[in-house]
Order: sequence, then C-alpha cells, then structure tokens
Amino acid sequence: MSRPDTPLLNTVAGPADLKRLDDRQLRRLAQELRAEVISAVSETGGHLGSSLGVVELTVALHAVFNTPMDKLIWDVGHQCYPHKVLTGRRDRIRTLRKKDGLSGFTKRDESEYDPFGAAHSSTSISAALGFTIGRDMGQATGDAIAVIGDGAISAGMAYEALNNAGAEGRRLFVILNDNEMSIAPPVGAMSKYLSQLYANEPLARMKSLAEGFEAALPSPMREGARRARQLVTGLPGAGTLFEELGFDYVGPIDGHDMDQLLPVLRAARAKATGPVLIHCCTVKGKGYVPAEASADKYHGVSSFDIGTGTQAKAKPGAPSYTSVFGTALTEEAARDPRVVAVTAAMPSGTGVNIMADRFPARVFDVGIAEQHGVTFAAGMAASGLRPFCAIYSTFLQRGYDQVVHDVALQGLPVRFAIDRAGLVGADGATHAGAFDVAYLSNLPGLTVMAAADEAELVHMVATAVAHDSGPIAFRFPRGAGTGVALPERGTPLAIGKGRMIRHGEDVAILSLGAHLGECLIAAEALEAEGIGVSVADARFAKPLDIELLLDLARSHRALITVEQGARGGFGAMVLHELAAHGVFDRGLAVRTLTLPDRFIPQAAPAEMYADAGLTAADIADSVRGALRPRGHVVSLKTVS
Amino acid sequence: MSRPDTPLLNTVAGPADLKRLDDRQLRRLAQELRAEVISAVSETGGHLGSSLGVVELTVALHAVFNTPMDKLIWDVGHQCYPHKVLTGRRDRIRTLRKKDGLSGFTKRDESEYDPFGAAHSSTSISAALGFTIGRDMGQATGDAIAVIGDGAISAGMAYEALNNAGAEGRRLFVILNDNEMSIAPPVGAMSKYLSQLYANEPLARMKSLAEGFEAALPSPMREGARRARQLVTGLPGAGTLFEELGFDYVGPIDGHDMDQLLPVLRAARAKATGPVLIHCCTVKGKGYVPAEASADKYHGVSSFDIGTGTQAKAKPGAPSYTSVFGTALTEEAARDPRVVAVTAAMPSGTGVNIMADRFPARVFDVGIAEQHGVTFAAGMAASGLRPFCAIYSTFLQRGYDQVVHDVALQGLPVRFAIDRAGLVGADGATHAGAFDVAYLSNLPGLTVMAAADEAELVHMVATAVAHDSGPIAFRFPRGAGTGVALPERGTPLAIGKGRMIRHGEDVAILSLGAHLGECLIAAEALEAEGIGVSVADARFAKPLDIELLLDLARSHRALITVEQGARGGFGAMVLHELAAHGVFDRGLAVRTLTLPDRFIPQAAPAEMYADAGLTAADIADSVRGALRPRGHVVSLKTVS
Repeated sequence: MSRPDTPLLNTVAGPADLKRLDDRQLRRLAQELRAEVISAVSETGGHLGSSLGVVELTVALHAVFNTPMDKLIWDVGHQCYPHKVLTGRRDRIRTLRKKDGLSGFTKRDESEYDPFGAAHSSTSISAALGFTIGRDMGQATGDAIAVIGDGAISAGMAYEALNNAGAEGRRLFVILNDNEMSIAPPVGAMSKYLSQLYANEPLARMKSLAEGFEAALPSPMREGARRARQLVTGLPGAGTLFEELGFDYVGPIDGHDMDQLLPVLRAARAKATGPVLIHCCTVKGKGYVPAEASADKYHGVSSFDIGTGTQAKAKPGAPSYTSVFGTALTEEAARDPRVVAVTAAMPSGTGVNIMADRFPARVFDVGIAEQHGVTFAAGMAASGLRPFCAIYSTFLQRGYDQVVHDVALQGLPVRFAIDRAGLVGADGATHAGAFDVAYLSNLPGLTVMAAADEAELVHMVATAVAHDSGPIAFRFPRGAGTGVALPERGTPLAIGKGRMIRHGEDVAILSLGAHLGECLIAAEALEAEGIGVSVADARFAKPLDIELLLDLARSHRALITVEQGARGGFGAMVLHELAAHGVFDRGLAVRTLTLPDRFIPQAAPAEMYADAGLTAADIADSVRGALRPRGHVVSLKTVS
Repeated sequence: MSRPDTPLLNTVAGPADLKRLDDRQLRRLAQELRAEVISAVSETGGHLGSSLGVVELTVALHAVFNTPMDKLIWDVGHQCYPHKVLTGRRDRIRTLRKKDGLSGFTKRDESEYDPFGAAHSSTSISAALGFTIGRDMGQATGDAIAVIGDGAISAGMAYEALNNAGAEGRRLFVILNDNEMSIAPPVGAMSKYLSQLYANEPLARMKSLAEGFEAALPSPMREGARRARQLVTGLPGAGTLFEELGFDYVGPIDGHDMDQLLPVLRAARAKATGPVLIHCCTVKGKGYVPAEASADKYHGVSSFDIGTGTQAKAKPGAPSYTSVFGTALTEEAARDPRVVAVTAAMPSGTGVNIMADRFPARVFDVGIAEQHGVTFAAGMAASGLRPFCAIYSTFLQRGYDQVVHDVALQGLPVRFAIDRAGLVGADGATHAGAFDVAYLSNLPGLTVMAAADEAELVHMVATAVAHDSGPIAFRFPRGAGTGVALPERGTPLAIGKGRMIRHGEDVAILSLGAHLGECLIAAEALEAEGIGVSVADARFAKPLDIELLLDLARSHRALITVEQGARGGFGAMVLHELAAHGVFDRGLAVRTLTLPDRFIPQAAPAEMYADAGLTAADIADSVRGALRPRGHVVSLKTVS
C-alpha cells in the first residue's frame, strides 16, 4: 500500500514544531495530515469521519495553544486521530484500536497530550473546568480547551457544565465543533471582520446580545419570559441558582479555513478573560470524497480501499445479536400495540431502527439523554405501555439512578435491552459492559437475564414483553451470534429458572450469558481427562434458580460460576445464596470466574477474554484447581 | 393541641368535591388547607416551606384538572402535603414520615392520585412525557402535568426532558413553580389580561418571541448565535438533534392568587395543543409568618409550636457525622492548599459549608448536577488538586457513569465523601444509601472505606487526603456519631488493613462501617452464652484485608459479615475472595448480613434496621444459626 507524500508532516515530531511554521505552511500541513489519517484508517478502520472533520482545527489548536501545558480535551475522543499523529504517535497510528496499539480515543496513559481521556460523550467541559480551577489555584497547568460536538453539547451533562462554567466566569475555551451547520462559501470578508473584531475589541458577550431581545417584549411578560428562559436554558437574566451562562460567543467560523481558525484562536487566546465559546462549523468526512458522500460520513468504518472507498466486508456469518434483538422486538411489537422502544441517540446501534422502519411512531429517540430516557420509559410503563429501553451496558450507567429511583423503587415494568454486555473489542475498556449485572442484580424487584445465544435472546424478548409485574433486563454481547437456529417466535421463559445443558458427576459449571460455549468446550476437555462435568445455563442472575443451585452444589464436588462481567454480579449473588443456605458449612469447592479487577484494553473480544483469564482453558484450569486437594482438607465425599 | 377550624375542607373527601365549589369557595378552601398543613406539620415535622408554597396551586390544579385520570406529577414530591390532604389522606396526614405512616413524598403505592413517585429531583417532566405517550397511544390516562421547581428544572435531566418534550410537541403541561421570582403586588390588571389572552387567542409560542430577538442581529453573527444558543440552550432556531424546544410559555402568574391561577389553568387546559410551560411565582413558606421570615423558609423542620414557630430541639448528644466530616475536612484544607471540595446543591447537608466558611474559594457548589460534579472533580484531580466530592450515597447514583468512566478508568484521585450511607430514617427508601459499596467496590483501582464511628471518619478524611494514587471513597451514616473521643488530628490509615476489636474462639464477626456497635452488642450476648466471639472492623471494602480475612476464617468455626448495605457489596467481595482462596473447599460456616432484597420504608433508623433484620439480636441469631450442626456435616475441627 503506498503511503501519501508528507514532506512537511515528516518534519513535525510534536506540537512544538508547529511554532516555527507560518500560516501557509500550517495550511499545507493540514493537507498532509488529512492524507496521513485517511491512509492510516484505510488500514486500521475506525472513526474516520469525525477525525477528518477536525484536521484543520487540530493543527490550529496545537499551533496557537501551548500543549501539553495547555490542556486540550476532545469530547468523546473519537476525533483524535489527527491529534495523535501530531503529538508523537504517528509511528503507531497504524495500530489504532488493535491489541497493544493506540486507543481509538484519547487516553491519559498514552500521552501527556491527552490530559483527560474520553469515549462516553459530553464530559469535556466538566473536565476543562476542573483544570481551569487547578490553573487558578497554582497547579502547573495552562489554559483548558474543550472541543465538543453539536450532538454531545446537547446532553444534560454538558448543560450542567456550561451552567457551572458560566457561573464561575473563569478563562476557559469551549470549541463547539458543529457538523450540522454549514457556512456559505464566500466567507473571506467575515474572516477579516472577525479577526479585526477580536483584535480590537473585548469579546462580545452573549449577555448583551440577549438583552436586546428581552427589551423588545412587553413588561411583565418580558420579565417572565426572561426568567423562564433563563431557568430552562441557562441564558442570561437576573441571578439564578447557577447564575447566568456568561460565555463569550465567537463565531461562527469555517472550521476548515485556517485563515479564520488561526486569527480567531489567537485573538481569543490573547483577549479572553472569562469563558469563551468558539463556534466552528465543520464537515464530517471533510476532504475525502467517499466519506463526504456517504450517509454516515464514515462515522465508523472497517479498513477500506482509498481509491474507491470500498470498505472490507465482514465474512457472512451468523446474524448479530443486535439485529436478532431488533427483529424479535419488531415481531413482538406487531403482535402487541403496547410495545414501544426508547433509544438514546443509538437507533441503529441498538437495532431499534428495525422496529422504527415498521412502527416509526412507537420508537422514541431521546438523544444523548440516558437519564431522561430511563424515566421517560418509566412514565410510559406507568401509563400501561410496555416500553423497551434499549441502551448499551456501558451507557446505561448514565441512567443508573433513574433505574434505581424511578424504575426499581416503583416496581415499574420497564424492559431494559442491554446490548454490548461484556467485552466489546476495538472500543476498549471505556465501552466494556462489565458492571450491569452487578449494578442491577441487587435492586429489589428487578429481574435480570443474560442470553447464552441468539435463540435465547429471542425468548428473552418474549419473556420481557410478557413480564408486567416489575422491571426486567436482559443482556447480550456485541457481534455475531453463535449461529444456532432461531425460533419462529419467542416463548416466555419461566422466571428464575435455569436449564441443564449437560450432566456429569464431578463438577458443575454454572454459566450466565454468552460464555456458555466456552464452558462447554472446557467441559469436553475435562471429560477427556476423566472429569465428569455438568454445565447449566442460569439464564437468570435474578431471581436465582435456588433449586438448581442447591442441587448442583449437593451433587458435585465443585461448583464454578462463569460470567462476562465484573465481581459483585452473578457469581456474588450465587455465593450469597450458598452462604445463606449453609452450603459452605459442609464445604464446597466453589470458584467464581468473572472479569478481573482491572480494565481490559482493546483487542479482539476473544483476545480480551484471554487477557481477562476467561477462555475455555482458564475455565478448565479453574475446575482442576477446585478439585485438587488442598492442605489438610479431606475429600468431602469421604467425610459425609 | 387545638386543630384549626376547617368547615369547608371538612366537606372535601377528594378532588371530585372541588368541582362543586365556586372560585370564592376555592380561595377559602386554600386558606383552610394551609391552616391544616401548618397544624399537621407542627406535630410531625417535615418539608413545610415547600408545601406552603403550593397550597393555592394544589387547589387550583385539582379543581381544574381531572385527577386521577389526569396525572399530576410533583417533582421531588416534598411539596405534596396539601395534595395528600386533598386526595383522601387527611386522616393520616399526622403520620407523615413516621413508621407505617404517610410518606413524605409522593408514592404510587399510597394513592392513585400519586401516579409517579419522587424524592430525587428533576424527574417529573420525563415521567409526564411518558404518560403523554401512553395517553396518545390509547392507554386510560388523561393529561399529564409536571410541577417542577426552579432549582430542579435547572438540572441536566430536566433539560434533557424539556428538549425531548418540545421535540415531541405533544399536549403536556409543565408548571414551573418559581420560588425565587417575586411578582410586584398590583397584578390584578395582569390577571385579567392573561385570562383574556388565553381565552381568545392561541397560546403565544416562545418560538415566535425568540425569533424577534434573532432578527435584530447582523447576518452571519445572527445565524451563528442562533445556532449556538439553540444547541446550548435548546432554544428555537433551525432543526437540531432534538429539534427546537417548542413549548408554549404562559406567565408569569402569581401562584398564590386564585384569580390568576384558575383562569390561566382553565385556558391552558382548554386550548393547549402542544407542550405548555406555565410559570407560577410562589413564596416558600407562604402564609406562615415564622416560615416566611426564616432563612431557609422552613424547608425541613422538626415539630414546632404554631404560635411562636419554635422548633423542637434534638437532645444535645454526640456531634453528627456530617459536622465531624466538615470540620475534619476544613482542618485538612488548612494544612493542604490543594484540598478543594465539590457539592451538588447540598453545602450544609454535606457539611462542606464548614469549609466554605473558612475557605470560600475552595468549595464549589455546582448545583443539582451530580454528573458534572464528579467529572469536574476528576478534572481538578488531573490538574494536581485534591478534590473531595461530597455527595450523599443515594445521589451519587446520579454520577455513577462518571465515577466509572472519568474517575476509575483514569485512576484519578478523586475523594468521595459519601454521607447518608445506609438507612436514613424519615426520608425513607428513596434516600437510603444502600448500594454505594456495591457499585463502587467492583471498580478497578477504587479504594472504598466505611467509618465505624466518627473518630474513624476523621482518620478516613486524613487517609483520603494522603491518597494520591487513585480514587478513594469513604462512607458514613446520617445522624449523630457514637460519642467517641475525637482525635486532635486524623492519621492516615494503612490502605487495605482492618483492625481487630476483640478476640474470641468460636466465631468471627467482620463488620464494615457503622454497624460495629451492633456487632459488639451481639458479641457480648453470645459470650454470655459461652460462645467466644472475635469482632473485627474491616475498615476497607476494597482492597480487602486478605490476611485478616484468611486468618479469621482459619481460626474460627464461622464467619459473619455485617454491613449497612445491599448484597453485592462488602459481603460479596469477602465471599469472592474466600472462594478464590479455596476456603470453602474445606468448609466454613459463613453468613453475609446485608440489607434485605426489598426497599425499607421510612421509620426511625433503628426501626428500619430492625425491619431489615440487622439488629444486634439478628446478628447473634445468625451466629447461632451458623454454629448449629447441619445435616450430615461433621464439625470441621474434628475433621481437620
């Protein structure tokens, strides 16, 4: 594969080298940087569209600000590929999202130029404000600059941060990277106007602009509108809880035009005394025709051919869990008009787009708003509907209090469809679905299931539809199913009942969820060694199948639980029950195989599970260890 | 105690009876209702100020709308006492917040007039939108009305809900109950104006108002300002992710003037086709002079003398955990300029007001914004500061994803001071701190402590200050400490080391946190029966003191863990470790005493723990049960 010609970029070892380049050279550098990013991502795959949208912005920010002393914080972080190339990571840029390679997001461990890592959205302004306080209190840190997209800035968390940053009134830069607003071409005059404006005048405050509006309204209505808008929107007016928003507004500028970016950033840096919002309009996928032309602007791509833009296709295989869920949900929705679905800005990621194609009025995309999404679903459930709240495991963490306070405490039958459970591959630790079984299974009244394969998933969708007596959740992994035959129609499962998969004499493996296949492979290997292995699929983390549990404990010398999740989840609930039933009093070799107590960096999912010590071989080893006599212990079979 | 004279109120069994009253009678009813609420709360204590602020609004809403078919949703719910009196609960209103009495919040179990319970803030609009969808999809539900305060509406979650509700455009009522905005007296003309306006015209859209403002700006700036404000604030303009806000605005009206409330609500109900925001200005504590005159407007009071307003004082006793924390933090802050504190609208509740008195520039109140607050603290930690994030256990649930993604994943040394851990008394299940040890202890790199008494708390504050290698949390209960002597200065504890409190031969009780006293009482009782009991204070839920754990397991016939928290927490982590170390292979009677798998309704904390099965007697019973020979089990001492 031929690499692009990048003579200027080749001279840049880090942001310090940008300081010796003139504006013309910076423009050229941006071109070379774009070519390099396209070339790299054509090999690795990744978030190309977002990265291409900020090439010029990246160059301009590093040219104008003094990173790493100044803290540049990329919201979400998936647009950081050009930033990584410029900050000493070019030699590893073709390892993006691979095992032992560069993260696809910003990451503190990776570089001092990544002062605050990300992956979940809308955190950058909060973090930047934190650095700003540090600077003002004498820590060795310069200015903080948050770069946040138009989607991310509309989440509740960003709103909270803007309110607080405005009230604090400290010097702080928020770059609004606006993919949706375009600027009509002849903007040269505006660029000149802007650079003059910010060179000669203090930055215009939004406040003064807004006051012009308020003054035009009739009196009591005016006060009220101002007050209401201020409360609702944080816009200026008389003091509120957060005081007024108080940002200087600069823009809009063309985020691909260095003749606008450089003077505006320089002026802002030179003049700002308080918080400044710089509004950059950019084009996702900018500068690469196939990306600009595609519907999703190459948001996330596999490796591709640079000439044609054709992406490598995955080998045809079993359908994905996501599509099986979406299809099963749609079929249930066809049968039951009360079925509705909620997604937080992820209709295709969660598969509810399949239902939306057929029942558009019954699928609600609430935006990046998991807190609202969960309670909105609770309200629908209280009205008698049957809402499915489809949120990835890692993002449902954003709505945890709402699950506790609005759903579980009230016993409302919200159905949580939890995709991306367990380790997820290239997106790495930030996207791992490690904690859901733990954070859900101890909530009173919740029912928690995990699908061992995609046929089970279909049954769990049916189970959830039928379950009106309280909240219910089911989790399933990212990626392709196991290839099992799918039922024509899901059948509700008996709540709190597991199933025996195979019988053996010596040891029982109790699996929850999609690691069942690994358990069966382990069982085969152990049988070959003469160890008889039972394997059961618990199906439910809550309520536990106590009868099955005690039966397995009674009839085997050891019990191993296996799950794709952290401690405190399924294995913990099993241990609590075994303890309460006095099973340990008489001895039982029990082991709980969970994700380890560390975050697992990106790799292929199978590699991540190997890293986590959760392969079939690990399971078999654990069984052997459990059966090995220890110290003074006498075999229980002998004793009893 | 003499009860107020309430001839009209006495004729009202429920909202249906309001329909036969004319406006003059409704005014009088409001007066009687206010007197009744003052009288009741003077006996019970509770959230008087908020309830007095909505007396007229409550009467007007029930008179105009058709509850319970129409769904009236009180945000937070602590202002619902007049609502409870009017909706068939007057006979129990003097049991407010008591064991087996009425909840201090709205609660679905309690009445069909409470369609959606609350206690945490800013959930009402989300829930109301859910009911609205249910109505539009044919469920047996009428209009939805959310009543939300000016503090609650400024949280990120409410912003998410407003955005979504505006984009949906469905008929929905949000009453903004604005305590902070006052209306100058002669408003009679306005009332007439408003009622005519809404009787004769379609409701004026905020959109059209806002557009007048935008038109006044110069061209590209105008587009940009509109776009930015729209993204940032949800205000109207060209389409966004959420589309425009789209609420009709009505107001401001005097929320204590039935001549304004009734016509405006009637007009809104008759005319609204989309979402409507009705802006009511009210006075917290309205109509009770001592409340209106007090600084906090009698937000939360104990029982009081109606004539003087004098509240019953708690008996002088040990200082509260909260004040011990606040004082210890302040002393650490005096020694270390890097110590800063974050609170989410709870400076006095969390005790950081004590630090703010001395170091006002180092205490940050971010408002009702736990998501932002946690990540803001993470940013400060990344800059080199030593932030204490002081959030109640139940409210930290609102920032859970930020704890995982921004703090734990990055290993940033944020110090979480978790007050109100365990059961909290009169605020009931919604405020219980049941889950924090569970949702924190399985996060890699987190250190989790629990204070056994207030002296331990002082040491834990010192431990947290000194701990720069990663995040650390410490929990402590609501209310008075145990009365132990406080150290002059806290001493950092050895991380992951527990302490032996007493030694005995037969059984070990391993306590985490403030239930240590109960464990010691249980131990005394058991010793009296000839059972030798060791008691240890684990201090750390993470990292666990494995050495102590294995030593206790080895040298006793049974091990009992005790904690003020749900399953999946400390006991679960102990079980995981014992299993991993093969302790159960050879048998050990182990029991994990936790909160039970149900929500515990309000009562005195001791009553709640009795309800939960966590008294000293329960602990002793559990020990006796663990020591009782079971089935075929041979005493391990004999076997080994």
